[in-house]
Amino acid sequence: MKNSFGNHLTLTLFGESHGPAIGAVLDGLAPGLSVNEDSIAHKLSLRRPAGKIAPARVEADRYQIVSGVFEGKTTGTPLCITIPNENIRSGDYQRAAARPGHADYAAYMKYHGFEDYRGGGHFSGRITAALVAAGAIVADALRRKGITLATHVSRCGAYCDRSFDDVETDIAALQNMPFPLLDPSLEDPMRAFIEAAKAEGDSVGGVIETAVYGMPAGVGEPWFDTVEGVLSHALFSVPAIKGVEFGDGFALCDMKGSQANDPIRLHNGGVVTATNHNGGINGGITNSMPLVFRCAVKPTPSIAKAQQTVDFIQNQETDLVIHGRHDPAIFHRACHVVNAVTALTLYDLLAGRYGTDWFTKEG
Amino acid sequence: MKNSFGNHLTLTLFGESHGPAIGAVLDGLAPGLSVNEDSIAHKLSLRRPAGKIAPARVEADRYQIVSGVFEGKTTGTPLCITIPNENIRSGDYQRAAARPGHADYAAYMKYHGFEDYRGGGHFSGRITAALVAAGAIVADALRRKGITLATHVSRCGAYCDRSFDDVETDIAALQNMPFPLLDPSLEDPMRAFIEAAKAEGDSVGGVIETAVYGMPAGVGEPWFDTVEGVLSHALFSVPAIKGVEFGDGFALCDMKGSQANDPIRLHNGGVVTATNHNGGINGGITNSMPLVFRCAVKPTPSIAKAQQTVDFIQNQETDLVIHGRHDPAIFHRACHVVNAVTALTLYDLLAGRYGTDWFTKEG
Amino acid sequence: MKNSFGNHLTLTLFGESHGPAIGAVLDGLAPGLSVNEDSIAHKLSLRRPAGKIAPARVEADRYQIVSGVFEGKTTGTPLCITIPNENIRSGDYQRAAARPGHADYAAYMKYHGFEDYRGGGHFSGRITAALVAAGAIVADALRRKGITLATHVSRCGAYCDRSFDDVETDIAALQNMPFPLLDPSLEDPMRAFIEAAKAEGDSVGGVIETAVYGMPAGVGEPWFDTVEGVLSHALFSVPAIKGVEFGDGFALCDMKGSQANDPIRLHNGGVVTATNHNGGINGGITNSMPLVFRCAVKPTPSIAKAQQTVDFIQNQETDLVIHGRHDPAIFHRACHVVNAVTALTLYDLLAGRYGTDWFTKEG
Amino acid sequence: MKNSFGNHLTLTLFGESHGPAIGAVLDGLAPGLSVNEDSIAHKLSLRRPAGKIAPARVEADRYQIVSGVFEGKTTGTPLCITIPNENIRSGDYQRAAARPGHADYAAYMKYHGFEDYRGGGHFSGRITAALVAAGAIVADALRRKGITLATHVSRCGAYCDRSFDDVETDIAALQNMPFPLLDPSLEDPMRAFIEAAKAEGDSVGGVIETAVYGMPAGVGEPWFDTVEGVLSHALFSVPAIKGVEFGDGFALCDMKGSQANDPIRLHNGGVVTATNHNGGINGGITNSMPLVFRCAVKPTPSIAKAQQTVDFIQNQETDLVIHGRHDPAIFHRACHVVNAVTALTLYDLLAGRYGTDWFTKEG
Repeated sequence: MKNSFGNHLTLTLFGESHGPAIGAVLDGLAPGLSVNEDSIAHKLSLRRPAGKIAPARVEADRYQIVSGVFEGKTTGTPLCITIPNENIRSGDYQRAAARPGHADYAAYMKYHGFEDYRGGGHFSGRITAALVAAGAIVADALRRKGITLATHVSRCGAYCDRSFDDVETDIAALQNMPFPLLDPSLEDPMRAFIEAAKAEGDSVGGVIETAVYGMPAGVGEPWFDTVEGVLSHALFSVPAIKGVEFGDGFALCDMKGSQANDPIRLHNGGVVTATNHNGGINGGITNSMPLVFRCAVKPTPSIAKAQQTVDFIQNQETDLVIHGRHDPAIFHRACHVVNAVTALTLYDLLAGRYGTDWFTKEG
Repeated sequence: MKNSFGNHLTLTLFGESHGPAIGAVLDGLAPGLSVNEDSIAHKLSLRRPAGKIAPARVEADRYQIVSGVFEGKTTGTPLCITIPNENIRSGDYQRAAARPGHADYAAYMKYHGFEDYRGGGHFSGRITAALVAAGAIVADALRRKGITLATHVSRCGAYCDRSFDDVETDIAALQNMPFPLLDPSLEDPMRAFIEAAKAEGDSVGGVIETAVYGMPAGVGEPWFDTVEGVLSHALFSVPAIKGVEFGDGFALCDMKGSQANDPIRLHNGGVVTATNHNGGINGGITNSMPLVFRCAVKPTPSIAKAQQTVDFIQNQETDLVIHGRHDPAIFHRACHVVNAVTALTLYDLLAGRYGTDWFTKEG
Repeated sequence: MKNSFGNHLTLTLFGESHGPAIGAVLDGLAPGLSVNEDSIAHKLSLRRPAGKIAPARVEADRYQIVSGVFEGKTTGTPLCITIPNENIRSGDYQRAAARPGHADYAAYMKYHGFEDYRGGGHFSGRITAALVAAGAIVADALRRKGITLATHVSRCGAYCDRSFDDVETDIAALQNMPFPLLDPSLEDPMRAFIEAAKAEGDSVGGVIETAVYGMPAGVGEPWFDTVEGVLSHALFSVPAIKGVEFGDGFALCDMKGSQANDPIRLHNGGVVTATNHNGGINGGITNSMPLVFRCAVKPTPSIAKAQQTVDFIQNQETDLVIHGRHDPAIFHRACHVVNAVTALTLYDLLAGRYGTDWFTKEG
Repeated sequence: MKNSFGNHLTLTLFGESHGPAIGAVLDGLAPGLSVNEDSIAHKLSLRRPAGKIAPARVEADRYQIVSGVFEGKTTGTPLCITIPNENIRSGDYQRAAARPGHADYAAYMKYHGFEDYRGGGHFSGRITAALVAAGAIVADALRRKGITLATHVSRCGAYCDRSFDDVETDIAALQNMPFPLLDPSLEDPMRAFIEAAKAEGDSVGGVIETAVYGMPAGVGEPWFDTVEGVLSHALFSVPAIKGVEFGDGFALCDMKGSQANDPIRLHNGGVVTATNHNGGINGGITNSMPLVFRCAVKPTPSIAKAQQTVDFIQNQETDLVIHGRHDPAIFHRACHVVNAVTALTLYDLLAGRYGTDWFTKEG
């Protein structure tokens, strides 16, 4: 498998930025899951750029479910969803010098020049619309089993959002925010920070944080298919993510064992930990505490400033100024893609553990 | 696949801390690779604890190659290597209260109490000896193709090693160090810091950094099987790793795009980048620059201090004092495990890209 | 993976008989393969029913390549091809009693009644159009490497076609036959035999035989991923196939070892066998001789005669007369599907053995 | 994956005929399954050659469970079982001319001469001892869920055993027969037939038939992971199997649809078919009827008669007389290997469908 992910629920992505459509195939869904088309459209709208920091290209995302749904419910056979590319201006894009920070040169070396380079082709963030659509179906199925999740902007420049506190409530509060923040008063200064970078022809990155509530204990494997391993595998597909940490992550390196270990307590008849430095995972396996992880989203590589690069067709050094439509920041949009990736990955793990029909069972 | 990893070169781990042996099966190796038994023994010795910060249990690691090697070379059929557990004192271990920071409770929920709890069972760091042995064979194969790699302790407490500079030379310098450092003068203060924690009945964590030299450009996939995704999937199996970042990772979030993008240059007829903030990977695919990534290794969870926990068999809260033999720090030993995991993962990616026999071809 | 096949080249099928479209995603193709749209259309036309034994439903198969092809060549990223369902008369189909010989009851037990039952839904032979389209692209790639293949009707009723003799020439002769026979004079009596069954409201089955010329020696694995195992895994997906045998297959059971063993000879400097009772495979691995195998295609289960069955919704026994449009035989059409499946499977094995780019290398 | 099989329960085989040991790793077993060591030893004894038609080499099969079992039950972590090779006479084997009907030449082309050629190396039927041991554990788990299976010699020369009739009873009757027959009076003439072939320096093949009782309906996938496809994939690994047919298999080609379709009836409140021409599988999915399939086992390729072949090291034609210890027939021993392969495959399918813990649930 290459552009597919998941052993029990398998997602396959296809499409290029400037082809007729992009899409996804989801195989392994339980039969009988309700497919809420409004929910898909809503999740797509959250991912869609908006406001002053949006690029010029905005797609309507008029998706079509091609297969796998009958009378409003999943059939259990592969669900294919396609989203046409409608707002294409190919004149903006021609094969030129390698854009620094982009995959142009790496892709050329892999595909020997046969790649569709228009708008980033298969590497385009556009493909994440299909991920988000697929994730919407799956997140609804998880929610019916009591598993909810959300991602917020944790840090951007000097602005730091607070961490998750009452995880269940915080997740609920984040569901409808295109620019998700636990402290919404930070949106204006963060947007101003991004707009300032845009005004300079530059871009910014940020840290985003995800929490998952309601995961049962005992999911994951001790070696290789650890929850951290499987999640990070998928998360690094989200464009611009360059780091993933679970629980306190890198900050654990500054603690003593006596600080990093989470004391274990009884609570309402269940076993919980008093703190959650380990992010809900021990030895690769869920422990019933909320999953918490953070991703580093690098600054958008497409910037207006002139950059030194190489025209690798001509094999000569050159300066490059990227025109066209670009986001000065994508971490807020990445939140919605991370949610989709997380939902898809957890569904896969749960389906492997409990079987296909678990998602349509009561309780 | 659960306790297996790799599509083209597949590693399967087995064994428990207190069973008769641990081991690994490696399937997909090219036929005709030289198997240097000294190299395996040497790598195992680097992983083996030593010095004042070692636990009491030290194994001789008298490994046996059970299959897949004939007249000193790989046959191309599955290579099984077993390492007997010799220095076992089961009296040290009994099922007791859940050890905070360990997988005891998570494992109980997954395996319903049937897990071999002695010494951590299949979760034990002991299993990494098999990983290191397997990695040694594969690292030799990579080296013959010009691909070398090493990991050093990047940070421990307030002590920070320098970063990779001349990557090829730095990697060579690190090959034989049990406590690998680019600036070896840091070993004494770091060891003193660890010993001080041990004296308090506590433990410490650290950040380790890996570089890979010589990876060809064009390896990896744009979605899911990105180099970052595949590597991190495997790396999170290394016990105590809770974060992975590529290139500048989380620090990229503090940069503007104009800083984070690596300017592209011609050098000796090839395409290189002037900086390597992206760690040798763009769009999930290698770009011919060195791979660079860092892992966060949390403090060893086994500490001598009393801890609050739950006896989940009796369902009651209790205080726990862990006796027995434990490491006050494992990040330096994790370096050698990370090297093995990295070698195994890259071999897998290269075998998928270039075919089985690439590793025995000239050039 | 469920409705996907292949480790290096992965095919995913989607769609239902009466949905908007069916399709396939092919991931793992070498970049730079020529995509000949006439070749795809031609292969689809061979699969399409025609003549007196055709059912009333004939689709135009106006396929669209949605992704993965740029300027007439594969990009190396996932190729999605969709084929709209245009000639649908849903009135012909309603959920009724289980059709004997069909998957109706089995599907109901698997999908709990959520399956799209119209026209067989995802079980419909209609889906094989997507397989054939995908196979056409891949067969062209194999042919450029000197590997050709074809399937003919080996037996139908009392009519037996001759076996492959000069395999390369025989394969070439079969390329454009909708009803492929090495002795074309058998087409008329075979069609008459089928029409006679149709006149009785009945159907017939047949044996089909495939040969592959030009496979290099040394492909396949000794255990599990044997060439026989991998091919049969895929072949049993072709609707109505209930048996697969390689070389002389079941007839080998009537031979002595001294008859079944193929004497080995030198020929033009290469190693060949004087006979090919083993069908080009020893120990699961190709030996450079042509691959030869046969598949048993059962009679089409949809017949006009009244049949005893159960209405499993009402839980009562009933008689069923199937109306609508059905083939009285499908083995001749299955030949083209088997060709596609064989091409896809061999491409997968070769890509694993020799790497992604082998198919675009000279020689 | 190469020498591994199964997505949910994964079996990996290792070892060579003349290495120190052979073995298997089973990953994905439910925790808490009883491991009956007598059952393993018994199944190994059934596979072991005995009587006049046995070769000289008989192994004691003193297996060791290295991991994955604790206090008599599976832990849920990988179970490794090794079986030492004790009765080795390497003098019998040297690399010589390619043995007709064996993998010698194919293996040489795949492994470039690095294969362990002694006694067939990794291709040896010896490896099936590990398969049988693994299968014994799994068959016990299936039986506790009401699923039983057995294989008998269906045909050898002119001697035909009867088919399965009362499947549950017939399976029970076959459990302890080294030479399994539904009509045990056929053992003497069949053995005489084999001995006669042996006396001529020759060997014979046969057809073996398997039935599985108690499989729930709704298991399998419509495309690719059909029950027929997954089972045949694994079955073709059993040495000398060259054909697999389900239900009436190739004989279905001689039936009309009205004969081949199984009429559907109500019986004891459940849905059954009056006949079982489709072998318990429709559209790739179980229908609750017994699974029935047959495998063609070719004559043992090792024969004493002189054979024409090629010394591919010297690149010259030669005559070969094989000395050493060989079976004049292996189909009766293959029955026990097929049972193991079938049990492992069905466990895998069931684990995927119902989750890991299904096997330890009541009912």
